[in-house]
Amino acid sequence: MSNNNRGLLYLIGLGPGGRAQRTHQADLALDQSEVILGYRRYFALLGPRPPEQQLIASELTEEMHRAEQAVALAASGKVVALVSSGDVGIYGMAGVVFEELRRRGWQPGESPDIAVIPGVSAAQAAAALLGAPLMHDFACVSLSDLLTPWELIARRLAAAAQADFVICLYNPASQKRTWQLTEAHRILLRHKDLRTPVGIVTNAYRQEQRIVLTSLGKMLEHPVNMFTTIIIGNAETFVLRDRMVTPRGYPKE
Amino acid sequence: MSNNNRGLLYLIGLGPGGRAQRTHQADLALDQSEVILGYRRYFALLGPRPPEQQLIASELTEEMHRAEQAVALAASGKVVALVSSGDVGIYGMAGVVFEELRRRGWQPGESPDIAVIPGVSAAQAAAALLGAPLMHDFACVSLSDLLTPWELIARRLAAAAQADFVICLYNPASQKRTWQLTEAHRILLRHKDLRTPVGIVTNAYRQEQRIVLTSLGKMLEHPVNMFTTIIIGNAETFVLRDRMVTPRGYPKE
Repeated sequence: MSNNNRGLLYLIGLGPGGRAQRTHQADLALDQSEVILGYRRYFALLGPRPPEQQLIASELTEEMHRAEQAVALAASGKVVALVSSGDVGIYGMAGVVFEELRRRGWQPGESPDIAVIPGVSAAQAAAALLGAPLMHDFACVSLSDLLTPWELIARRLAAAAQADFVICLYNPASQKRTWQLTEAHRILLRHKDLRTPVGIVTNAYRQEQRIVLTSLGKMLEHPVNMFTTIIIGNAETFVLRDRMVTPRGYPKE
Repeated sequence: MSNNNRGLLYLIGLGPGGRAQRTHQADLALDQSEVILGYRRYFALLGPRPPEQQLIASELTEEMHRAEQAVALAASGKVVALVSSGDVGIYGMAGVVFEELRRRGWQPGESPDIAVIPGVSAAQAAAALLGAPLMHDFACVSLSDLLTPWELIARRLAAAAQADFVICLYNPASQKRTWQLTEAHRILLRHKDLRTPVGIVTNAYRQEQRIVLTSLGKMLEHPVNMFTTIIIGNAETFVLRDRMVTPRGYPKE
């Protein structure tokens, strides 16, 4: 299976939940891999694996080390899978791996080969559970200022709100980051109406799934954590029964 | 199978290509459906279907009629699937169906039930084939001005470029819409560097797949059509070998 001694690293998006939300291609790549690396918590999403497969679980904060280890194993000739929940290419592990390859001076023709396998992202999972809020232009913004200056995040929120984008907030809060969502809310309220529909989805497609449909005015009244995605509508977004819907266009003048 | 005479309408994202890029949940819903409706061209992506399943193909421009027909069939008690390529909730059929339900005055408890099943979107497919360009905040903008005033599209492009979002362009051109991409390019160049990496992916994961890695300066030199997605990097996006990568953060000052 070791691909003529030419290593292969699959970067796999597992989607939001268990097997049902995974693509066939993701499962095929998992089945072909000799080693699977990932955040400990997401290994539960994988389901039972064959005994000959090596599983290397690590902690959430160990992304750099996980990427180094995955690249080193694949470069040594193995077929390796590195998994992220959601889409591996959206705030996931794919970029971390390519940054590691850049550090190593990855040359054309050099091992490992890299194959990125996309998955359903957290924003799409939230959107599907809410109805159809992403039917028109939207912007995804992470509120994590660990690696990005808050000034830039604030500028993006203001720009997206001013131009009437639907806005998806990733990483709204964690145990250590608690003021960012309040500040984001203040910025959004400068440009969006209090009554703008807002959907708050935590643990989409997992056992602890929680779906809240509210308004921008009341957004801060609901608990959020690092498994929450928030979707804020545009000026045309409406609520129909228990669904949040953005029309695919604007009324003709 | 008709769900106690309570109709059910699945809104299914098929993903970009064939079965490999579909989720298990999408296949399950297709298998449970008595009728499948969709754009003629996407029926090829479905593969062979059991003979007892009714397939209703329509043309690209007939979205409203397709939504009406799907809702009417499901309201009559059938289990119905309406399919879109990519994610049904991102510029797909989901919003069109909810708009039709609003016109019908869909009340709580009233048939049909609606289940939205997300799929890998065109932007994610393009991103995976290019490398990892969507690792940081991004905005999706459709250049189709059929239902949206061009002034708003232009405002969104400027806002997204100014705030250094990665930008995904949907519907960059069609046979009738040819000037929009040139105009978008002019707006983006006001705020983004000529050397910003740009990926142009046409027919991702299909037979006619074409991947171009270029720069914002040279973006207009490459052919695009209605099956093309364009991804324009942020200020940190780089090219590594044949991949386009956006780092997950910004350098510390």
